[in-house]
Amino acid sequence: MSIDLNDTELGALTKGVSSRRAFLRTASLTAVSTAALAACGKGASPTPEAAAAATPPVAPPPLSPRAAADAMDAMHEKGIKSFPAKTAGKGNQLLTPRIEKGVKVFDLTAREIKWEVAPEQLVSAMAYNDQVPGPQIRVREGDRVRVNLKNELTQSTAIHFHGMELPNDIDGVPFITQPPVKPGESYTYEFTIPEGNVGSNMYHSHHNSTTQVSLGLLGAFIVEPRNPRPIEKVAHDYLMVLNDGAHGFTLNGKGFPATEPLTAKLGEKIRIRFMNEGMMIHPMHLHGMHMTVIDKDGWPLPAPWRCDTLNIAPGERYDVIVNCTNPGTWAFHCHILPHAESEHGMFGMVTALVVSK
Amino acid sequence: MSIDLNDTELGALTKGVSSRRAFLRTASLTAVSTAALAACGKGASPTPEAAAAATPPVAPPPLSPRAAADAMDAMHEKGIKSFPAKTAGKGNQLLTPRIEKGVKVFDLTAREIKWEVAPEQLVSAMAYNDQVPGPQIRVREGDRVRVNLKNELTQSTAIHFHGMELPNDIDGVPFITQPPVKPGESYTYEFTIPEGNVGSNMYHSHHNSTTQVSLGLLGAFIVEPRNPRPIEKVAHDYLMVLNDGAHGFTLNGKGFPATEPLTAKLGEKIRIRFMNEGMMIHPMHLHGMHMTVIDKDGWPLPAPWRCDTLNIAPGERYDVIVNCTNPGTWAFHCHILPHAESEHGMFGMVTALVVSK
Amino acid sequence: MSIDLNDTELGALTKGVSSRRAFLRTASLTAVSTAALAACGKGASPTPEAAAAATPPVAPPPLSPRAAADAMDAMHEKGIKSFPAKTAGKGNQLLTPRIEKGVKVFDLTAREIKWEVAPEQLVSAMAYNDQVPGPQIRVREGDRVRVNLKNELTQSTAIHFHGMELPNDIDGVPFITQPPVKPGESYTYEFTIPEGNVGSNMYHSHHNSTTQVSLGLLGAFIVEPRNPRPIEKVAHDYLMVLNDGAHGFTLNGKGFPATEPLTAKLGEKIRIRFMNEGMMIHPMHLHGMHMTVIDKDGWPLPAPWRCDTLNIAPGERYDVIVNCTNPGTWAFHCHILPHAESEHGMFGMVTALVVSK
Repeated sequence: MSIDLNDTELGALTKGVSSRRAFLRTASLTAVSTAALAACGKGASPTPEAAAAATPPVAPPPLSPRAAADAMDAMHEKGIKSFPAKTAGKGNQLLTPRIEKGVKVFDLTAREIKWEVAPEQLVSAMAYNDQVPGPQIRVREGDRVRVNLKNELTQSTAIHFHGMELPNDIDGVPFITQPPVKPGESYTYEFTIPEGNVGSNMYHSHHNSTTQVSLGLLGAFIVEPRNPRPIEKVAHDYLMVLNDGAHGFTLNGKGFPATEPLTAKLGEKIRIRFMNEGMMIHPMHLHGMHMTVIDKDGWPLPAPWRCDTLNIAPGERYDVIVNCTNPGTWAFHCHILPHAESEHGMFGMVTALVVSK
Repeated sequence: MSIDLNDTELGALTKGVSSRRAFLRTASLTAVSTAALAACGKGASPTPEAAAAATPPVAPPPLSPRAAADAMDAMHEKGIKSFPAKTAGKGNQLLTPRIEKGVKVFDLTAREIKWEVAPEQLVSAMAYNDQVPGPQIRVREGDRVRVNLKNELTQSTAIHFHGMELPNDIDGVPFITQPPVKPGESYTYEFTIPEGNVGSNMYHSHHNSTTQVSLGLLGAFIVEPRNPRPIEKVAHDYLMVLNDGAHGFTLNGKGFPATEPLTAKLGEKIRIRFMNEGMMIHPMHLHGMHMTVIDKDGWPLPAPWRCDTLNIAPGERYDVIVNCTNPGTWAFHCHILPHAESEHGMFGMVTALVVSK
Repeated sequence: MSIDLNDTELGALTKGVSSRRAFLRTASLTAVSTAALAACGKGASPTPEAAAAATPPVAPPPLSPRAAADAMDAMHEKGIKSFPAKTAGKGNQLLTPRIEKGVKVFDLTAREIKWEVAPEQLVSAMAYNDQVPGPQIRVREGDRVRVNLKNELTQSTAIHFHGMELPNDIDGVPFITQPPVKPGESYTYEFTIPEGNVGSNMYHSHHNSTTQVSLGLLGAFIVEPRNPRPIEKVAHDYLMVLNDGAHGFTLNGKGFPATEPLTAKLGEKIRIRFMNEGMMIHPMHLHGMHMTVIDKDGWPLPAPWRCDTLNIAPGERYDVIVNCTNPGTWAFHCHILPHAESEHGMFGMVTALVVSK
């Protein structure tokens, strides 16, 4: 499930620039204010606070309309050219379990870390195993599973397995189904994956959750069925975890241009598992190809339907299949436009699907 | 359709507290600031204004991390332990009609009242028959119905039967289908329930409605079909009316911990009729069991689908069936987390489904 | 597809006023403050800024409750009586193509204009061919199409054909698939409509799009299928483009009372193509009749479903059929009530479906 880009695919990301009409590169940028370029250099403006902080205290001299247009375009171009930008840390990494007497054992440590959400943008995060989203847990229908939670936060926490139909004492809600797991303590969840309870589920904090989930205590909990449907046989199985709290607008824990592109070869089918861990809806729009929606919250839809814009609300998951029949680099973004683009260029919930020939 | 809890069910609400690992109760709380405990005592923080008002003018001395965690947990525990908390007033009460010459007659009086939305939280409300939501009206397909509205408000009003396909002069929109009903006046709506126009509908003000509906002039208008579908034969038929205006985030007119739990015995099927009377979406998440969505806006879905998180937009209704196969006390809440939990604990759009053995 | 009203239909808009109970018209309005009437005279309050600007600097003397109710009602009545109010400019006008060697050629010029969004409310807009929404483009499956874009804005732009599965270099995303189209420049998009890629799509700016789409650079791009389904044979084919940016809450570029009513004769079937070009959801509620949802994003739904309130998220399109079986003037509005009504009366996302006998 690697989504690293090879050189050909990376080259494809900017192929449009030398398109039909000449792009005037000679426009003088010398008049662009230092403040504007500094803001541009940050590559993203995920929060209103950050945008306000970038405002220069004294207005720069006005630009000519063309110079202003060129300056704006240069910021847009710089962001896109830097995609996919390198940042420290990567979420969603597959967590290989230890096997102890037939039980798949996953160890999760919750800690406060600094997270590079976009180039040079460090934010305070709460993370499982130093990843945002936390490591991807994948198990199979019928598996015996043990999750060991170690709490190294400065506040209590607990894990809820969202979408899993487990015994009540595994449900992870402090004071209803368990005590809170205090700082420095550990807690163990052990259970058998119920028959039929498969698909795209999640694990996340259910204590002080507005803060803890927003800051990163969340991850994918995927249950593979014993007998996959034919439509589930795909070349790539992608995750897209949406979040929108103090880290700005993120896909898999990163804001554009630090988001990772999805890649496929022409003719391949891919699956995308959307999971909204945020506080707002995010209607995700794929350019160039449609999506066939096959599952809602891990449950097969009796009548799969097609779309190019899929609205995902907090707590929801949707699984879609994309038949990659159209070659090129396709923008893929939240269609609430202020979650994806400002006057400084694209940021936040933007990535690309790169279909190579 | 009583949802009172018996002692066993009430006991189940806190059974998790004595779970596997000992919960340290000995942590000193003496350092907790008076302001924080006072805020906790209110049991809910439904509005930013209320939260701001609770801020102490002088910062308390800092707590040790563990004491701070214990103090936060104590606030969470106190909220949950008090659930379901008693408050004055109960909405959605079934309104038994008078029968006059074969007509089912319902009398509604709109008045300004004080409403206890959560313990000790009195808010200004506009209410039908002093209830928020207004009394539940239940009629049958083909019934002749008369609704007498008496306006004891200080502003004009009118009733729209949302989802009902009635003659135009019954539609309840001042200056389009009727004059406004002035303070002190009355107005009568009389109509026959159309064939096939069944299911989960609503009645609410359609005059100065941003204010009037937000403050409580709303209720369920349910039409029972002559020939129910087999899937409609359930042990309990629950309403969940969502609102989010000046009263904070409410389920059936109350914020947690004053919300009412839903109850069922193991193996029973229940129906839940979600109705959004607010201004925001609310993706309602049930723990432990999935929901099968059978109706949208009172209309049967041709292909019912399953989910654990159901996104309900303003004006929408969804009917779901839950097969109560998993015993225990299950959290049931809006998954926009700031509608359900703050650092002070759960509040607002939180309740529980209690499945007893 | 004319939706002009004849005299009978216009008369129907206010027929309810002389309904069963006498409407007291004699209430003195002389005590109503000049400020309130001035605000009323504007007919709409689409933005918080406008509302704040209308606040009188000195509070008027208090009214008696009845006089206050009458004053509020008078503002509501005035708005409704003025519907449909005349304003300069009309969006969505069908753009007839030139035919050049078998190619359907559409010319679009992007310019900054003043747009009358509601009576006497002029806003700054960016428009294609001086229309908001831009002119409606209608083509057929298999057509060869050329769109010439002339940029007379003071910033760069580009057109994305949202929902169309075109070759990558036609996708309209600056720096990914093409250079930005600079002020004063032109750009040509030429393509063949793919087989099966039919239905309700859109074209809009994909550069600085939060600003440009919000200000009006958007339009409908409708592809008629070679072989329409029987359900598509309707008496009227209406567009309803939703937007919510700096222009306030608009339907087809206008706020109530300047919105255009939809009209039909009793027994006719109509199609409505909802397209959300804004930044918020809009659950559109039709009174008196239900809608059958047949298409999502231009793709036929395998199991069409019925509703009276349809939630449309940014970037989404839904096609519905309404069987106009109920005569009268029916309110049709966003059910996020603050998008549709204030204490000053209806504004923004409100129109009517007028079914005449």
